[in-house]
Amino acid sequence: MTNPLTVRFWLAWLLVGLSNLVLAQPPRGPLVVSPQVNADKSVTFRYLAPQANEVKLSAQFEKAPVAMTKDAQGIWSVTVGPVKPDIYPYSFQADGVTVMDPANVAFFPNERFKASLVDVPGDTPLIHALRDVPHGSINYEYYPSIEGTTGSLVVYTPPGYDQSPSKKYPVYYLISGTTDTEETFFKVGKTNLILDNLIAEGKAKPMIIVMPYGNMAARVAEQKGGAKPADPTVRDGADAVKRANDFTTDLVSNVIPYVEKNYRAIPGRENRAIGGFSRGGGQTLRTAFSNMDKFAWVCAYSSYLSPDEMNRSYPSIVSNPQQTNKQLKLLWVSVGSDDFLYKGTVEFMDYLKAKNVQFKSLVTDGGHTWMNVKTYVAATTPLLFQQ
Amino acid sequence: MTNPLTVRFWLAWLLVGLSNLVLAQPPRGPLVVSPQVNADKSVTFRYLAPQANEVKLSAQFEKAPVAMTKDAQGIWSVTVGPVKPDIYPYSFQADGVTVMDPANVAFFPNERFKASLVDVPGDTPLIHALRDVPHGSINYEYYPSIEGTTGSLVVYTPPGYDQSPSKKYPVYYLISGTTDTEETFFKVGKTNLILDNLIAEGKAKPMIIVMPYGNMAARVAEQKGGAKPADPTVRDGADAVKRANDFTTDLVSNVIPYVEKNYRAIPGRENRAIGGFSRGGGQTLRTAFSNMDKFAWVCAYSSYLSPDEMNRSYPSIVSNPQQTNKQLKLLWVSVGSDDFLYKGTVEFMDYLKAKNVQFKSLVTDGGHTWMNVKTYVAATTPLLFQQ
Repeated sequence: MTNPLTVRFWLAWLLVGLSNLVLAQPPRGPLVVSPQVNADKSVTFRYLAPQANEVKLSAQFEKAPVAMTKDAQGIWSVTVGPVKPDIYPYSFQADGVTVMDPANVAFFPNERFKASLVDVPGDTPLIHALRDVPHGSINYEYYPSIEGTTGSLVVYTPPGYDQSPSKKYPVYYLISGTTDTEETFFKVGKTNLILDNLIAEGKAKPMIIVMPYGNMAARVAEQKGGAKPADPTVRDGADAVKRANDFTTDLVSNVIPYVEKNYRAIPGRENRAIGGFSRGGGQTLRTAFSNMDKFAWVCAYSSYLSPDEMNRSYPSIVSNPQQTNKQLKLLWVSVGSDDFLYKGTVEFMDYLKAKNVQFKSLVTDGGHTWMNVKTYVAATTPLLFQQ
Repeated sequence: MTNPLTVRFWLAWLLVGLSNLVLAQPPRGPLVVSPQVNADKSVTFRYLAPQANEVKLSAQFEKAPVAMTKDAQGIWSVTVGPVKPDIYPYSFQADGVTVMDPANVAFFPNERFKASLVDVPGDTPLIHALRDVPHGSINYEYYPSIEGTTGSLVVYTPPGYDQSPSKKYPVYYLISGTTDTEETFFKVGKTNLILDNLIAEGKAKPMIIVMPYGNMAARVAEQKGGAKPADPTVRDGADAVKRANDFTTDLVSNVIPYVEKNYRAIPGRENRAIGGFSRGGGQTLRTAFSNMDKFAWVCAYSSYLSPDEMNRSYPSIVSNPQQTNKQLKLLWVSVGSDDFLYKGTVEFMDYLKAKNVQFKSLVTDGGHTWMNVKTYVAATTPLLFQQ
């Protein structure tokens, strides 16, 4: 039997012979362009799978998977929309197998699933659009973390950071959700571009944004050996409390000192904000309420703490609301009306209200999605470090 | 019919009710741990696909795909090896569909395929191992590029860069292969960790490494609209020459000025190196040979130019070898003996020899792989900028 790789090998040699230009890699079948955003905001998706019997598009702007059709080359395609401008996760289902779009570089960093991203631009640039404004920089850093591990951070520095070597900035610590990674606020949330745009418009103060990895247990297991930790999506009481405490310890004892040593960060609670999405929002509230001397600005995106946990673990926050209201320059809670955490988040807001703890809130359409996270980041960062 | 999402929704609420801790996302089926590197260097791969009929592992350390077997939960698995320590790309083939490992965050950035990465550590740390040494930083940058587009760069700054605000560094421009992206030398090549280790051992000089995106045509099409460019793996003469020229123009006119303005780079040809893999190696040789006033250190990894192109396009390089040998502090050519470009690369080396152009070379085992790229980066960076 002829190995297809052997055929490719000789075909490659043939092309080298025909061309005077270096051949980088063997041919790989027809070029597939996907996704293709059309002028009317419809989007064409394509996927090469000559042997598949059924391929569907699964996209967060569609309620259910959409059937694709195959052409003579074996390329499956479908055109959908027009789609409301935004960035959406999507994947293909090929004979029941969920697969990223091989032709698309934009991806969703996650521990448990793999999805691609499609960016449908607005007629006027959306808040996360790559515009011709001064750009900040995204930095990947290693730092000494808990239990002898090496932690990883993604850090945004604002435009002009390198050109103003004596200027110092406030810092926003921003934590992503369960199974997300330290890259998700960058790659999916486009937090750097949102800030570039808001800063260019004078709407947000230049700030450093520090994006840590929230899953301490997984990293300890990976670097220190032994079995991987229990499923992080399963909420067993003691294990979850340890995970929450480990995160708070790492952020306060390791991340903040690393950032304040290696970046030009203004120290002090009034120059530190903390926020997060989903699990990261829970980590935010727990870390902030147990470290009121460290943070004055607190944002919970699609997340909450239960009244029971508040009463049990953070009684001083609600027993003296005047003091809490004086200490917190901002307490923010937001959620989508279709979010599976909507009811709990509303309950949290009602609880804060009953306790006379001041907060700002935003309830949007939509669910537990990164489309909503971008909205919340764009709504809250203009409020941070103002006065 | 009950929608599985509805079931998840209510199950999520149930868990919220049972737990006082915030539930971040709905449950997602059993936790899959993959890949798991065992003490004896064997590796266990796992993939959840209850409905699949056949799943195979396709890994660059195996000559052919390896069958996996399904357990009662629907998790397919196989244990292979022991595997020679290194980082390898791999994917699963589920009923013929190539899919990344959903449980693995480590991935291969590429325009045409999606693969995951498994890191089998050595008994003593390999050259790319994450070690307890001072770490440099990886920076994602935007810069003004050709035809009004915004280009993207990944930039490594060495350990201590931010702590020594008056120190300047030489710069290595490092270009990845066809269909790779500006992230590939970072995410797959681990160039930052290789340099951290070599610098810690005093084997390489601290340097800035700039990793551009090589596919100008794709970016112009994406940002300026219109049809996507022709398949970059097809070598049509005129189109390929334009692509090569566009790259050289962008590097010399846009990337270098941006880097030398925004980073503490020492200017001048003796403080600039250029290197690349595969197509990036071809771009390296063309850019260097047409800009001898800009670069004194030149590294071609798994790539070459044909004698015909050399004679036609760069006659001055070989007509006056004494001058070339004086100008180039290093000309490096390396290739694997199983590389499909092996024969052409040897022909290039023979040509240089016959023309009395001095070069250093390394021929390794293996093929056109990123395992070899790491070896070449580790072999060449200690030579750069040494008087």
